[in-house]
Amino acid sequence: MSASLDNIRVVLVNTSHPGNIGATARAMKIMDLKRLYLVAPKLFPHEKAEWRAVGAADLLDSAVVVDSLDAAIADCGVVVGASARQRRIPWPLQDARSAAASMVEAATAGNQVAVVFGREDSGLSNEELHQCHFHLTIPTSEQYSALNLAAAVQVVAYEILMATHQQQSRGEQKWDVTLANADDLERLLAHYEQVMIGLDFYDPTTPKQLMTRLRRLFMRSRLDKMEINILRGMLGATEKMLNQRRP
Amino acid sequence: MSASLDNIRVVLVNTSHPGNIGATARAMKIMDLKRLYLVAPKLFPHEKAEWRAVGAADLLDSAVVVDSLDAAIADCGVVVGASARQRRIPWPLQDARSAAASMVEAATAGNQVAVVFGREDSGLSNEELHQCHFHLTIPTSEQYSALNLAAAVQVVAYEILMATHQQQSRGEQKWDVTLANADDLERLLAHYEQVMIGLDFYDPTTPKQLMTRLRRLFMRSRLDKMEINILRGMLGATEKMLNQRRP
Repeated sequence: MSASLDNIRVVLVNTSHPGNIGATARAMKIMDLKRLYLVAPKLFPHEKAEWRAVGAADLLDSAVVVDSLDAAIADCGVVVGASARQRRIPWPLQDARSAAASMVEAATAGNQVAVVFGREDSGLSNEELHQCHFHLTIPTSEQYSALNLAAAVQVVAYEILMATHQQQSRGEQKWDVTLANADDLERLLAHYEQVMIGLDFYDPTTPKQLMTRLRRLFMRSRLDKMEINILRGMLGATEKMLNQRRP
Repeated sequence: MSASLDNIRVVLVNTSHPGNIGATARAMKIMDLKRLYLVAPKLFPHEKAEWRAVGAADLLDSAVVVDSLDAAIADCGVVVGASARQRRIPWPLQDARSAAASMVEAATAGNQVAVVFGREDSGLSNEELHQCHFHLTIPTSEQYSALNLAAAVQVVAYEILMATHQQQSRGEQKWDVTLANADDLERLLAHYEQVMIGLDFYDPTTPKQLMTRLRRLFMRSRLDKMEINILRGMLGATEKMLNQRRP
């Protein structure tokens, strides 16, 4: 199996039915994915999860249970959110095939990658979706699109394995700098907010989507660590000047 | 949906568990496949099939139950057998993706097409596999390949739907704002340079790739016009402050 698959994790958020966690583990292992993160699962561990996992119980044993999405993706350079529908502020959207190619490319370059699936009934919240660099959609019938959680994971995991096979025959693209992780990005956005308030450019009491639009821009750009340093360096220089002006 | 999908049927041979028939119906309908043939199912109709089908019970109602594979494929121009392993006498073998492309091509040309899945425990017999024009395999982990029946149908049905989409040009994603043009971008970069010099953050006499890195970032991001306005608005606010400081 490809070592890059070890850099890709599946994150399930607030799963209600432990059977779906087990079926997800099985769907992953069949496609050589091994790292499962569970954000605040309703019932876990649970015998129904074990039962549905069949031969993939080892993935349940090594699953990482955390209480927030932040904790599941903090060290990730690429975060992809599974989304069934288009949102009010459109986010970059790729189908499962091209999303898998992007994820494998980033994983091969040594980055940690997360693909995030939401609740069985309501998916991911807008806030959770905004923590993702881009969204992934699985093409389905327009009349009937009730893909269940494990089936969605199965299709995505299959595409990821297919993408690793394709990349092995294609060679990899090189980037010169490691990608920023989710933590770096949150700090950058917080820094922007602070400086924009200092500049009287942004009023958090009447926000008008400005922070969301900046977030979308930088998510989509998949910033590397040096770019983060440049942007934050410039924010720092602006802050210093602001402080000089107001003693 | 594509009319060619009406020419493609899924055939299940000797299925033991009615739940798998229901889950297969659901997996099919989600991908716009509607024609299900059942060769000598152990238990059908059955409430477990209804229950697992969820919103695809109509496919169970219209399922054609026959007592031999011959009867299920008699009118088919292309018959494809799902096979987990290579047989003693090698048969033409395609992975799910290229098999789906072949099936859609044949269906579009007006041929009846069948994709045949075997028993949960033992798959298709050699004799049954020899009734197929070629075999289809789903790439999986080499260590663990226990893809269950409905998951296998899900992946194949997904590939069939993807193959029908591929004939159409890739649909353009909708974005809420017009993209910036080259001119907008050059002006943004010039503005950055000017403000970074004002901030003593950037010295054009020892540039060290900083402008090149900013350019690569914003090129890759494919900025829209509102994002340009936000970034330039912030640069403008910074400039105003710089001017206040230096009367």
